[in-house]
Amino acid sequence: MLADSPAASLCLALLHYPVLNKQGEVIASSVTNLDLHDIARAARTFGVHRFFVVTPLADQQELVREITGHWETGSGARYNPDRRSALRTIRLADTLEDVAAAIREPEAQSPEPMIIATTASMEACCRDRVMTVRRCRELLDDGRRILLCFGTAWGLAPEFMDGADAILSPIQGPGAYNHLSVRSAAAILLDRLLAG
Amino acid sequence: MLADSPAASLCLALLHYPVLNKQGEVIASSVTNLDLHDIARAARTFGVHRFFVVTPLADQQELVREITGHWETGSGARYNPDRRSALRTIRLADTLEDVAAAIREPEAQSPEPMIIATTASMEACCRDRVMTVRRCRELLDDGRRILLCFGTAWGLAPEFMDGADAILSPIQGPGAYNHLSVRSAAAILLDRLLAG
Repeated sequence: MLADSPAASLCLALLHYPVLNKQGEVIASSVTNLDLHDIARAARTFGVHRFFVVTPLADQQELVREITGHWETGSGARYNPDRRSALRTIRLADTLEDVAAAIREPEAQSPEPMIIATTASMEACCRDRVMTVRRCRELLDDGRRILLCFGTAWGLAPEFMDGADAILSPIQGPGAYNHLSVRSAAAILLDRLLAG
Repeated sequence: MLADSPAASLCLALLHYPVLNKQGEVIASSVTNLDLHDIARAARTFGVHRFFVVTPLADQQELVREITGHWETGSGARYNPDRRSALRTIRLADTLEDVAAAIREPEAQSPEPMIIATTASMEACCRDRVMTVRRCRELLDDGRRILLCFGTAWGLAPEFMDGADAILSPIQGPGAYNHLSVRSAAAILLDRLLAG
């Protein structure tokens, strides 16, 4: 463990609710196997030691347990210990409140973890709460606990964005197209926040 | 098209041969659906307009055609035009030589495209040919044609690395663990090379 590194102050959460579908309706999405693998491997590479997979659906929670269990104790653990090491960063949670409770510092004076949402495109309503990557790095360097939240499907629902403490400046290419997978977006933001 | 941008000088290739398996043997690997989707979406986001999927295996070539065809003309094209736009960056090729021929400039005086390999960990034998991201950015800014190559499975085979013009400096976290998916590695390197 790298207790004094900026990565030690960062946790990730991948939310399957409340997220939007293609029609802009709030849904609970299904778990995607490779989201867990790719984001866990990126978390492990950059020294993040908690990656929360958040879903309220019992069948999807069972799927997460199957995926992580296969690599923890099944044939996968013998076949690929590196994968096991990555998937051990995963913790399952019903809600974001459960995640916040799990990572709360025991000291009474510690501030609550800061909830930072990610988005592919900055809506006008959110502009006053945008945080730059540079500012987020400074906070991590100062040891501020941050929970960085990613949405599956068509992204985090507005009700979630409204409740976040800040919204991380989105990844922009040279053109208007910005449809990265959540796996790619998480990898890029971990690199921007934590690479030396 | 962004003809004058650094992205206009960059092409990507995802190689399924010659790559290594877990035992370090040279193999032709299978195509992974989400490799195509994620890397195409990252390419499109950062303005790269050619992403070559390289496999000599007829059945795997057929799989690539099925994946891209579904989103080009099938129900997928209607369902998600953004995905179609990304997957249109994909070109299928038998070998890297075919890729190099396809991207060669017609002018007789133009230099050959520079072949740059990627790797997760720099072997001692390769250290003298490492290129930094900064240097690669400079070359792209100068309009030098570069073909950036990624390996599937356990990475590009030594015989391929030996023949490359340079090897891009690998992504390193704070610790020894460096097992990113090729999808994540491609996303991070495109961001490092092309983000403003």
